[in-house]
Amino acid sequence: MASLLHVSEDSPFTIDNIPFGVFSTKDDPTPRCATAIGEFALDLRALSKAGFFSDVSVTDALSQTSLNAFAALEAKTRTAAREHIISAINGGKIPETSLHRLADVKMRLPVDIPEYTDFFCSLEHCKNCAPMMKGAEIPENFFHAPSAYNGRASSVLPSPSLVRRPRGVYWKTEPDGTRVPTYGAEQHLDFELEVGYIVSKPVPYGETMKVDDAPDHIFGFVLLNDWSSRDLQVFEMPPLGPFNSKSFGTTISPWVITLDALEAFRTAPKHQTNPLKHLRYGDFAQGTFDVKLAVHLERGGKRHPLSTSNLKYLYWTPYQQITHHASANCGLRTGDLMGTGTVSGDGVDERGNKCELGCLFEATLHATKPIALEGGGQVGYLEDGDSIILSAWCEDSSGRKVLGFGECRGMIVAPDAPIR
Amino acid sequence: MASLLHVSEDSPFTIDNIPFGVFSTKDDPTPRCATAIGEFALDLRALSKAGFFSDVSVTDALSQTSLNAFAALEAKTRTAAREHIISAINGGKIPETSLHRLADVKMRLPVDIPEYTDFFCSLEHCKNCAPMMKGAEIPENFFHAPSAYNGRASSVLPSPSLVRRPRGVYWKTEPDGTRVPTYGAEQHLDFELEVGYIVSKPVPYGETMKVDDAPDHIFGFVLLNDWSSRDLQVFEMPPLGPFNSKSFGTTISPWVITLDALEAFRTAPKHQTNPLKHLRYGDFAQGTFDVKLAVHLERGGKRHPLSTSNLKYLYWTPYQQITHHASANCGLRTGDLMGTGTVSGDGVDERGNKCELGCLFEATLHATKPIALEGGGQVGYLEDGDSIILSAWCEDSSGRKVLGFGECRGMIVAPDAPIR
Repeated sequence: MASLLHVSEDSPFTIDNIPFGVFSTKDDPTPRCATAIGEFALDLRALSKAGFFSDVSVTDALSQTSLNAFAALEAKTRTAAREHIISAINGGKIPETSLHRLADVKMRLPVDIPEYTDFFCSLEHCKNCAPMMKGAEIPENFFHAPSAYNGRASSVLPSPSLVRRPRGVYWKTEPDGTRVPTYGAEQHLDFELEVGYIVSKPVPYGETMKVDDAPDHIFGFVLLNDWSSRDLQVFEMPPLGPFNSKSFGTTISPWVITLDALEAFRTAPKHQTNPLKHLRYGDFAQGTFDVKLAVHLERGGKRHPLSTSNLKYLYWTPYQQITHHASANCGLRTGDLMGTGTVSGDGVDERGNKCELGCLFEATLHATKPIALEGGGQVGYLEDGDSIILSAWCEDSSGRKVLGFGECRGMIVAPDAPIR
Repeated sequence: MASLLHVSEDSPFTIDNIPFGVFSTKDDPTPRCATAIGEFALDLRALSKAGFFSDVSVTDALSQTSLNAFAALEAKTRTAAREHIISAINGGKIPETSLHRLADVKMRLPVDIPEYTDFFCSLEHCKNCAPMMKGAEIPENFFHAPSAYNGRASSVLPSPSLVRRPRGVYWKTEPDGTRVPTYGAEQHLDFELEVGYIVSKPVPYGETMKVDDAPDHIFGFVLLNDWSSRDLQVFEMPPLGPFNSKSFGTTISPWVITLDALEAFRTAPKHQTNPLKHLRYGDFAQGTFDVKLAVHLERGGKRHPLSTSNLKYLYWTPYQQITHHASANCGLRTGDLMGTGTVSGDGVDERGNKCELGCLFEATLHATKPIALEGGGQVGYLEDGDSIILSAWCEDSSGRKVLGFGECRGMIVAPDAPIR
């Protein structure tokens, strides 16, 4: 028995966290459900098979190759399973054979993702981007309902991932200023700092859900990098929205942070006051989460901080997003992934510069003001070989990190570089 | 043995057709693969189990509950299976026990649909809609690449389907002309006449496909009604495109018409001349299909013709659409559904009125010029209880109908009416 599972101070996977994920190992490539504690993945399939859970529905669900069946269980059943795991760890009752060093495992997508939707709900992101979008201002609909588009589930990848620079059609500006449609490699490749969340209880096609019931429909949260091709996006967005400019890769962190773990960090949304009735809910003043976010760039072996932000800055909360999504009868399925949209803020650093900008389009004003990197060099957009690392954590009132999301890491590679 | 399978002259399911579908019966609710011939569904699972196909991969694939495994087989294997079925029917070698009257079976979705994409590729549709869209003209990108958005697979339904009028957020115009955001039932509910097609050979994530290989990637064609909520669409489209306005229901005809069946009806696209290199292909002059289309409205028990059109009118061909879709590395999976976008034309009737308008938005100029119905009444947009029936067929040079797609039928019902 692992009587002393040491959790180091800087580990995101504390006893207050107990996230859910899916891993495999070299010796056994079958994907299996797990939690993370300190430096270890704890194999929940192994525990299940050994009779660890008294609830047979949990045993069955955690013996699958994805977390969909577990996510589909009632919230209280999942809560009880998590509490049982916490008790066992605290009581030193985890067999050492069920532990694998995180460094030795390969993380998979936590769920089979039927569909992926991406929202656009940060007022600051909206304001910061507006001056760079031809003729754009804050869309009139922004303040009345969460904006979203359907993304592409086939290109959602678990961290760490290699993402090829895509080719596509874009407007190439000739020396004389004319714009010529061209098919070629994207020249302005960006990341977007987002949080993702995964649907638990489904909403049948043809029906809707109540915003007050939203917690029943959310399994938990991950980090999400909505890699974006700005050249392709400028070309294709009017009038149908983003398509190929977003579907060349979306990286998510592999550990799903539960609503139970985040309960202590509930807080009020920043801006919103008086939503339409279907988006108004009882505990509105506690309707989002205080989750601190950070972005780092790795280039040439060095790690550079690029931005910070916070989930609570979003104009529309995840509960409102998912409710609006379901409000016109589309149906939601267990495992559906939602991206919150880029999370920007209006914070400034000690020099008075904005420092909560969730993408390079904002942070470098479309590469017109590159960011100087410590030790030399600068970044406008992403180069082949650049890695972007998103991270997230929750702090208590004394500033101590109580739990973290782990990394969401991806590297951009050349259009024809190997990725498997 | 069914020695004389009579196929009536007006049946879409001739010996030249042999489409693929999935059905179930009251006695056996398990979905099974089938073809349609005359008035019958021919149970291909039953034939497979009886050793009808010598190719074990076909036997296995046609014993599944969807056509995904069959669609994933090589094109030549599917062609051989279809030819074997044709020979057996012609030779009177079909056991009567494998035949079910179409009137007695329930048709299911032919494939499990991983993702659904809808294109916007009719120049006439684009031109007709432009004057009614605030500040809109033909988008600059229209002529350089097929436009598309990701749709919602969870709301794709097999014909015949009941579709609830959705609720959503829209701009309500007050008596004084001000626009107030409102959540309520859609007031301007429309159909869209489209053709759909289903992916066979997948394109792995991170890779692309060649336009000349497009036939290998398409299993076959169906009819597709892209039901559209115009109020919701006007509200939500800028800047992210259609979302809830399209995801309340998409009806497809249940029989997949193969490329083999359509081979005799290949023709040149109507407008296009000089596409970008990745969309240019060898047999471009035969790059689309001459498929005649029609829309009928059923209201109060009467059937009214609303429009006709033709697949060949599309500016971008299906081969170019699917190639552009895959061109930025998103990956395509077997069973993915593509909608061609509304297929309008510029034909006129004997009175000089345009008669090839693929939706009511175009046909009634957003209900400002309602269509008078024979026998009284008129249609602006769809009312609860209205059914829309799409049909399609291919003719030989003498005008004889060689094969048809069957019906794509759906009825709009009130927001809370039962649909199951």
